[in-house]
Amino acid sequence: MSASDSVPRVGVWLIGARGSVATTVVAGCAAMAAGLHPPTGLITETPPLTGSGLPDLSALVFGGHDTVDCPLPKRAEALAAGGVLPHGLPAAVSAELAAAEREIRPGGPLPGDSRTEEDLIAAFAADIRSFVRRGRLARAVVVNVASTEPAPTGDALPPSSLYAAAALRAGCAYVNFTPSTGMHHPALTQAAKSSGLPHAGRDGKTGQTLLRSVLGPMFTQRALTVRAWSGTNLLGGGDGASLADPAAAAAKNAGKERVLADTLATTPEGEVHIDDVPALGDWKTAWDHIAFDGFLGTRMILQTTWQGCDSALAAPLVLDLARLTARAHERGLSGPLSELGFYFKDPVGQGPAGLGEQYAALVRFAERLRASPADGGTRSHTEGRSGEEQR
Amino acid sequence: MSASDSVPRVGVWLIGARGSVATTVVAGCAAMAAGLHPPTGLITETPPLTGSGLPDLSALVFGGHDTVDCPLPKRAEALAAGGVLPHGLPAAVSAELAAAEREIRPGGPLPGDSRTEEDLIAAFAADIRSFVRRGRLARAVVVNVASTEPAPTGDALPPSSLYAAAALRAGCAYVNFTPSTGMHHPALTQAAKSSGLPHAGRDGKTGQTLLRSVLGPMFTQRALTVRAWSGTNLLGGGDGASLADPAAAAAKNAGKERVLADTLATTPEGEVHIDDVPALGDWKTAWDHIAFDGFLGTRMILQTTWQGCDSALAAPLVLDLARLTARAHERGLSGPLSELGFYFKDPVGQGPAGLGEQYAALVRFAERLRASPADGGTRSHTEGRSGEEQR
Amino acid sequence: MSASDSVPRVGVWLIGARGSVATTVVAGCAAMAAGLHPPTGLITETPPLTGSGLPDLSALVFGGHDTVDCPLPKRAEALAAGGVLPHGLPAAVSAELAAAEREIRPGGPLPGDSRTEEDLIAAFAADIRSFVRRGRLARAVVVNVASTEPAPTGDALPPSSLYAAAALRAGCAYVNFTPSTGMHHPALTQAAKSSGLPHAGRDGKTGQTLLRSVLGPMFTQRALTVRAWSGTNLLGGGDGASLADPAAAAAKNAGKERVLADTLATTPEGEVHIDDVPALGDWKTAWDHIAFDGFLGTRMILQTTWQGCDSALAAPLVLDLARLTARAHERGLSGPLSELGFYFKDPVGQGPAGLGEQYAALVRFAERLRASPADGGTRSHTEGRSGEEQR
Amino acid sequence: MSASDSVPRVGVWLIGARGSVATTVVAGCAAMAAGLHPPTGLITETPPLTGSGLPDLSALVFGGHDTVDCPLPKRAEALAAGGVLPHGLPAAVSAELAAAEREIRPGGPLPGDSRTEEDLIAAFAADIRSFVRRGRLARAVVVNVASTEPAPTGDALPPSSLYAAAALRAGCAYVNFTPSTGMHHPALTQAAKSSGLPHAGRDGKTGQTLLRSVLGPMFTQRALTVRAWSGTNLLGGGDGASLADPAAAAAKNAGKERVLADTLATTPEGEVHIDDVPALGDWKTAWDHIAFDGFLGTRMILQTTWQGCDSALAAPLVLDLARLTARAHERGLSGPLSELGFYFKDPVGQGPAGLGEQYAALVRFAERLRASPADGGTRSHTEGRSGEEQR
Repeated sequence: MSASDSVPRVGVWLIGARGSVATTVVAGCAAMAAGLHPPTGLITETPPLTGSGLPDLSALVFGGHDTVDCPLPKRAEALAAGGVLPHGLPAAVSAELAAAEREIRPGGPLPGDSRTEEDLIAAFAADIRSFVRRGRLARAVVVNVASTEPAPTGDALPPSSLYAAAALRAGCAYVNFTPSTGMHHPALTQAAKSSGLPHAGRDGKTGQTLLRSVLGPMFTQRALTVRAWSGTNLLGGGDGASLADPAAAAAKNAGKERVLADTLATTPEGEVHIDDVPALGDWKTAWDHIAFDGFLGTRMILQTTWQGCDSALAAPLVLDLARLTARAHERGLSGPLSELGFYFKDPVGQGPAGLGEQYAALVRFAERLRASPADGGTRSHTEGRSGEEQR
Repeated sequence: MSASDSVPRVGVWLIGARGSVATTVVAGCAAMAAGLHPPTGLITETPPLTGSGLPDLSALVFGGHDTVDCPLPKRAEALAAGGVLPHGLPAAVSAELAAAEREIRPGGPLPGDSRTEEDLIAAFAADIRSFVRRGRLARAVVVNVASTEPAPTGDALPPSSLYAAAALRAGCAYVNFTPSTGMHHPALTQAAKSSGLPHAGRDGKTGQTLLRSVLGPMFTQRALTVRAWSGTNLLGGGDGASLADPAAAAAKNAGKERVLADTLATTPEGEVHIDDVPALGDWKTAWDHIAFDGFLGTRMILQTTWQGCDSALAAPLVLDLARLTARAHERGLSGPLSELGFYFKDPVGQGPAGLGEQYAALVRFAERLRASPADGGTRSHTEGRSGEEQR
Repeated sequence: MSASDSVPRVGVWLIGARGSVATTVVAGCAAMAAGLHPPTGLITETPPLTGSGLPDLSALVFGGHDTVDCPLPKRAEALAAGGVLPHGLPAAVSAELAAAEREIRPGGPLPGDSRTEEDLIAAFAADIRSFVRRGRLARAVVVNVASTEPAPTGDALPPSSLYAAAALRAGCAYVNFTPSTGMHHPALTQAAKSSGLPHAGRDGKTGQTLLRSVLGPMFTQRALTVRAWSGTNLLGGGDGASLADPAAAAAKNAGKERVLADTLATTPEGEVHIDDVPALGDWKTAWDHIAFDGFLGTRMILQTTWQGCDSALAAPLVLDLARLTARAHERGLSGPLSELGFYFKDPVGQGPAGLGEQYAALVRFAERLRASPADGGTRSHTEGRSGEEQR
Repeated sequence: MSASDSVPRVGVWLIGARGSVATTVVAGCAAMAAGLHPPTGLITETPPLTGSGLPDLSALVFGGHDTVDCPLPKRAEALAAGGVLPHGLPAAVSAELAAAEREIRPGGPLPGDSRTEEDLIAAFAADIRSFVRRGRLARAVVVNVASTEPAPTGDALPPSSLYAAAALRAGCAYVNFTPSTGMHHPALTQAAKSSGLPHAGRDGKTGQTLLRSVLGPMFTQRALTVRAWSGTNLLGGGDGASLADPAAAAAKNAGKERVLADTLATTPEGEVHIDDVPALGDWKTAWDHIAFDGFLGTRMILQTTWQGCDSALAAPLVLDLARLTARAHERGLSGPLSELGFYFKDPVGQGPAGLGEQYAALVRFAERLRASPADGGTRSHTEGRSGEEQR
């Protein structure tokens, strides 16, 4: 995982660059590159995915946009105090945190901002291009890890779509780790298509939905009839607060429900609640209650309780996605990368909904990335593959 | 699902024929054949498996051995009183229960029984042959659903192996739904091999282990490190009592632990308890507590609570296995059917341990069974397939 | 528990007389009076409360109002099919169910009903008086077990208050087992006060709140700081549907939250959800997640899952309350019976919020009821006692 | 909470002085005395107990015996790394940790120790007397917080009883926070009686049993019949390892079961497991599954999951007990202090088993301690009080 001078460096431009997830991404990447921690949670470091030509962790360079001011090193200290980052880590990787902090630019629009959508897109794209140029980066991936925004109403582009448009204009691959609109806005469809850039999303599958994507297929494969699937999520941190907004929660829940609809033969009864519980900080508890009918209609119940740290669940997936998408870009893939459905609640493109099949698709995708870039010239469009290949 | 006279009838010979599972199998099969209940829980009635030439539910004829006297109709009433069978079902299928009851023969050895092992095997085989002949059955499958027996000590064949030997002698396919020794005894290895008969097992995967076989792969695929996986099972009924015997529990737990060892990269800490709680009757509660490390070693916890009815979970799997194994027999397959690992905690032969891959193997197996029996003449041994095909 | 002719009979007039709770009350009372079941769940049949001059179960006579038509015997069969009543019970107590059915009168107002509030109160009161007269009852208690109504808006009396007014007019004690307004409407305050009748309520404490009323004091007594108390309730049946109305849920949640506010030193974070899950029928699951701080701020978690049958939880409490309130009426007590806080989420009057202290208050109340009616003449107002005594 | 020179200082002599609990006691007491943390978990700092003449936290001086060598400051660092103590606390109270470390003497007997029981008792008593004399302490309380020892076999005094005998000989009050034998050995009965010293115990009620002591009375007060109460405890740390010894677990479980037997009318089915799960460190998870019958025999289920930090749960109780017992000694109370049953699984003397009544007894006890020592001359024996008073 060491980067010699000759290894091309790859940029990761984080929308929400001073948030918990981004801070954990930057600090964790530095910690692993320095050998301070094993790469727990990184699928890209497991045998089925290594050797696919992904950029090394030590080759990743971080920057991004944010609308808040708290600098990354200070945020890292706060996360360590809350048990999200190991104690001592912020100090151990202070240089890398400071380096990333220097590459953070003001996001927007802020209240009172009089710039037009075009102004904002141009400014954001210029920030990203400048980052790539100054860092002499081979390429960069834009990853949205900002707080979930309310479902948009009207024609105006929501901020997440402004950033997505900026990614296209700057010639960058794009990953939407949130349920926000991003590249899904109709106004971006044509530009995305003609850009020749790959993009992935939407809404990282970190806890309750991850579980649902393995339990749903189990019920279906066993021919058990799920009658009601109810869930409650308790979380603090920024995510809890933003999802306390019913409009934002609606966006998130749509993804959760899609998993059930896609893996179960029927749509069960039941609701999903997302509660803001500031006392839990970055820790998330998800309770699921599944009432199902077995043989002769016998009623049975499965309950699950998942207690996890949201940032720690998200960060390795963000690193995986940045590496995979950067490599897809390098290999000339474009369009929606449906093979990355393993990572998302509401994946782009067509693909299986069960985690096992999604994992198999991911492994096949990694094999496809394996071929050396020099082989790229022989690529052609292939039926059934997402991410149409092009030059 | 109706059986005309020309449709060959297939026998299901149940070891433990008056137990909860067997009673639920007989009553449930009759209820579904009569259209009283949908086939919830029967994988063999779902699209990927239908059309594989499996015997119709209405073509199944039941008999078996047992050492207890309580007649099947009475047992069915007791199960209905306990909520295991729907109220009214025993009356609705009383003819079928009575018919199966007439085909139950005394099992053994009982205390004081002076017969030799050979005497017992011969007697059991004669009972099975008589059942096939009198019923003019095309073939029969012997299925062990008796209470778990203690792990054997010494050279003597345990009862489950006496019945397995009788199955071989009577020319029947064999399924071991329990953790008991059955066909696994070294004294039966050669006879099983030369018999040309298929067999499947061991230990039906109905609850906690079913869950473990989907959750284990999830942790592995997500590169999360499971540190401790602890479990407690509470169950009454005969199973609870027999598993309160530490020797019997040891046999059962070996299967449970195999699933974790096979699906996780590491062997986690943690124990499994099986408690006899008579007040729970046939209802089983399994609690699992999984402590795992995420990114940067962050500790997270998943807990699951599974509340199911043991007989209702087991019965459809027993029907599936009887149908699949009878068809395998018809198609001339022999030896251990490793493709049925989907159903077992401790599957015979080599095969994947994760449920998703096991399901894929089952679907492929069903496709293989699909070819008409007339095609059988062209079959040949195939590398990597379990159940060597033969004439 | 046998009632001779000389034992005065006592009426129980149920608002919502054909609902699940009422049906369980009538069938269960008959079953216990006939010795078919032990009095599980009846606090009035335990040693600290027996001997207080309460009416025998066999002395209770049932009637009531309802706006639905499904007769009680048929409703009982449906409950037995759903496992709420034991199978065979509706047949065993069919005479008692039929007798109660004959005493049910149409409730109201139904849509399109043109009667004034005064008309309705007069009609309801006439129904109750007629019930008492025809049955030659010593007295009757009116108990509201109807579905929760939305919190009232405007000046109009909600139906629950019309029935409460009718109880006063008919000279009956009154119990509100629901969160509906009932006697709490300001328009009834003066009439209640001058009636000389006792009343009790509000909102039976059957599951989650029962638990909270023992767990809250535990945290307080142990000086542990509860930071967040979150809860989700899943229930089907009529209650689930009516509480899916946010206005009705708000009424219910107010009671739940009062328990925490009253037993904890602080008001913790956290919400309570009530989900309508028809697939659960009369079965209710309540999950609570309690995050608390221990020594030096160490974060700890308690979770509880309560799976109960709502009608079976409510019915014995309704019988207890009818007996206690009838006896209080007989003994000349009047006004809000705060000593019955043991039974309610949101008790009338002043009293402790912890279950242990509420139980002690109940036992003292039973002692107070013990004195023979003949002693009543010497009673006088006593400071700190609820239910001012009078002639 | 500041101690002037004129305030008498009180010693707390900890058996197991370098263990997790003792380290948390010493560090936590210093932190609260310095105002670094609020006194969460200390019942003695809540209004009903303040003003009873208890020694200030700042007046407590720590020392003790241990057989391990790891010094207290180093142990505190390890606990902070594991999240048991707040980060930074060991440094903030390093002076107090070092002071306590200086007062720790070698425990025993170690393997190969040739000293007689009398030698050991004499040596331990001399250590304690020296601690009191050098510190010019008004008195000291000996508190056993060592790992649970196996249930003794034969006549030999187990180590816990050697330390208890030493406490008597040194004229100190004694608290047994563990299930070990301590003062319960028959060989100590006479000495304890004639010593005129108070003692308390046995086995601190910190988690699962605390819950059981509030839930048990709830079921009884509600006339619900508990049919089975099953429990599993997962814990790492030293306690997990020592309780993996079946003999030690047996001692612990006896206390847990006593609570159920004492608070429920019947003894339910069900077992309790204690699993050593080193990966959990000092964190403990207790799962309880309670199957109970409601009205008409309807089966219902309550499950609880308690996730706590064992040392953080125990430490404030140890401080409470040291203060209360020291004050009881000062006030001339002697014998078993049954009023402290609130703190113990298996309390000495006679007293209620429900937590609510135990709390009431504790509050009354605190009132009794309130009288100034000068009033002591007028005390007399009082029927029904534990801890016979004497000069």
